[in-house]
Amino acid sequence: MVKINENFLSMKKNYLFIDIAKRIKAFSEANPDKTLIRMGIGDVTQPIAPVAVEAMKKAADEMGNAETFRGYEDSGAGYDFLREAVSGYYKSFGVDVPASDIRINDGAKSDCGNIVDIFGDGNTILVTDPAYPVYVDSNMMAGREVIYADSDESNGFAAMPDYSVHADIIYLCSPNNPTGSVYTKDQLKEWVDYALKNEAIIIFDSAYEAFIQDKELPRSIYAVEGAKKCAIEMCSLSKTAGFTGMRCGYTVVPDELVVKSSAGAEVKIADLWNRREGSKFNGVSYPVQRAAEAVFTEEGQKQIRKAIDYYHRNAKVMTDTLTELGIKFTGGLNSPYVWLKCPDNMGSWEFFDYILEKINVVGTSGEGFGKNGAGWFRLTAFGTYENTVEAMRRMKELFK
Amino acid sequence: MVKINENFLSMKKNYLFIDIAKRIKAFSEANPDKTLIRMGIGDVTQPIAPVAVEAMKKAADEMGNAETFRGYEDSGAGYDFLREAVSGYYKSFGVDVPASDIRINDGAKSDCGNIVDIFGDGNTILVTDPAYPVYVDSNMMAGREVIYADSDESNGFAAMPDYSVHADIIYLCSPNNPTGSVYTKDQLKEWVDYALKNEAIIIFDSAYEAFIQDKELPRSIYAVEGAKKCAIEMCSLSKTAGFTGMRCGYTVVPDELVVKSSAGAEVKIADLWNRREGSKFNGVSYPVQRAAEAVFTEEGQKQIRKAIDYYHRNAKVMTDTLTELGIKFTGGLNSPYVWLKCPDNMGSWEFFDYILEKINVVGTSGEGFGKNGAGWFRLTAFGTYENTVEAMRRMKELFK
Repeated sequence: MVKINENFLSMKKNYLFIDIAKRIKAFSEANPDKTLIRMGIGDVTQPIAPVAVEAMKKAADEMGNAETFRGYEDSGAGYDFLREAVSGYYKSFGVDVPASDIRINDGAKSDCGNIVDIFGDGNTILVTDPAYPVYVDSNMMAGREVIYADSDESNGFAAMPDYSVHADIIYLCSPNNPTGSVYTKDQLKEWVDYALKNEAIIIFDSAYEAFIQDKELPRSIYAVEGAKKCAIEMCSLSKTAGFTGMRCGYTVVPDELVVKSSAGAEVKIADLWNRREGSKFNGVSYPVQRAAEAVFTEEGQKQIRKAIDYYHRNAKVMTDTLTELGIKFTGGLNSPYVWLKCPDNMGSWEFFDYILEKINVVGTSGEGFGKNGAGWFRLTAFGTYENTVEAMRRMKELFK
Repeated sequence: MVKINENFLSMKKNYLFIDIAKRIKAFSEANPDKTLIRMGIGDVTQPIAPVAVEAMKKAADEMGNAETFRGYEDSGAGYDFLREAVSGYYKSFGVDVPASDIRINDGAKSDCGNIVDIFGDGNTILVTDPAYPVYVDSNMMAGREVIYADSDESNGFAAMPDYSVHADIIYLCSPNNPTGSVYTKDQLKEWVDYALKNEAIIIFDSAYEAFIQDKELPRSIYAVEGAKKCAIEMCSLSKTAGFTGMRCGYTVVPDELVVKSSAGAEVKIADLWNRREGSKFNGVSYPVQRAAEAVFTEEGQKQIRKAIDYYHRNAKVMTDTLTELGIKFTGGLNSPYVWLKCPDNMGSWEFFDYILEKINVVGTSGEGFGKNGAGWFRLTAFGTYENTVEAMRRMKELFK
């Protein structure tokens, strides 16, 4: 008789955002006259850059012509033109990542979920709480032991290492989803030191790096010395370039990242990951890779900057409103997320339902991201400016 | 200290086709004057259908416009328009698969590799030998026990169930990669009966169904009664519509496919797979899904038929040549693969090197697919007509 993976049975029935989508659908069906303003799931609203559109169309034409048609990539790790472009992008903010360390994927979520494959069962996984649910879900599915580092008001929602706790694999996200907090270089250095001391690996999620406005804050963990010996970095064009529906991201697996097998042999993490991907992945659609390449040109960078500035303006509208209402929050300045303390001591889901019903605004319950999210709530700056202004007007009316 | 998944250490260093790509690269670098004819990796050469190009370009434009831009899909299982189109495609050859059972993916290889996540460690995996390496690789990575059912000359390279052997998960591929053999409906019925009796699940790879010319042969396992209670089917547009570089496929997980947990609870396989995908996948690029949708229109079907006929013509050139040379083979008629017995009792890799050096033709060593592939060799019909004719001319000269 076939045996299922019973770890699934101890998990929440749905992935958080699918759960929220279902709640919203139910509300909309019961209230067909209400127009919702969605500030929940971190999806973007601004179109992709014109250069990306043109590059994709050109590549589509190439695929329709026998002379220029492209089939399988040799490696599945991405075309050199895109790996070089990403490497150049890192260089633009002063970080050296060679193209050979970069693997192109169909979005950071896939690699973030699939990376568990290359690690063994005996690892202790450390996740900051609250966190993006994929870190915990993917490890729970594999039956791994997950422990938590508290990110809460006391530390500005920036959990720091505790040497009395041993971890083998550490998930960090900065700028943070959901709290919007950003690690300083010194703080990241503490994590890198901890990882090196514990012979642990950091999985660093930098999906929101493009939102950092403060030039002192690191946009990559590789801005910290020693990180290439202990960290894998995952990033995405989803938020940087509005690619949530296009699907393209990248994972950096440094050649220097070497660990020991139980028999004492040195093993390159890159070799394990390449082997995993060789058997279970066939690369990203060629026209999508061409669109992504265009994003990293000078013109592309100018065009995506407009969208990022647009979202920054939304965040400003939100943080100004919360300040005016005396509602505590973090994030917004170097992040597309604003993380607020629910007014009147409301619970996270209570607040979710309250603003959904009263002002038809959708956000995300902080509790969905972990226990320290209880009493907190995530709003995103990814809406349209008009909707953001309107949502904040309603917030003011409700909480004035 | 981080523990790696040591199952990787007992595997071959490279995925078969990456290994072959490296051998070819080495030969080409040593012999820059030689022009190779590639009949090895199953990559296509004909461009994608004009309707697919146009659909992708239109969708790219939509992505560049705020009014029509699309971000994340709600479910990640594919847009309804494409799921409906695939369902209609099944209907066109008489098989009823509702859209709700269909999940769109970035190619069958990904799902084929990732499906192991939802099954437990105690399963016995049955793989026909020879087989597409992903079945074995993905299960070896997860440390599962893999047993083999022999496909060899004695059974026309169509392994049949043996009731004295117990298996929990069974991988079948028809038309078969690499042997080109195709199961009849009666033969598939035997496998379905075996699976139902053993409460096992069949993972049915139908990636080459579009190459079936004989109308009596089943193009889906769901042509067999009872299959929805025991089988998951995986298919792809890679070979059907030249999407190897576009990346789009689909997996059918029937709603009726229910198994028991160790505690005796009924669990829908679809729920497990949706949960897996919810946390580890974010859907296929929207413009790729639109291109795929176009393939399933009446015009699209006409256009892809041309490419499939073109490959059938190549297969005919190959099988005619082998017949003339008195070399044994299977496949070719209902399959893009021709599986031949190496002449002069050569070994598979010996023959690989021999024709690479003597006539600069690249194929795939049968041994790369399993022990029963020893002494056999796979050629694909996916090249250009001119190259196929030239390769066969050289074969005739070499073996006359």
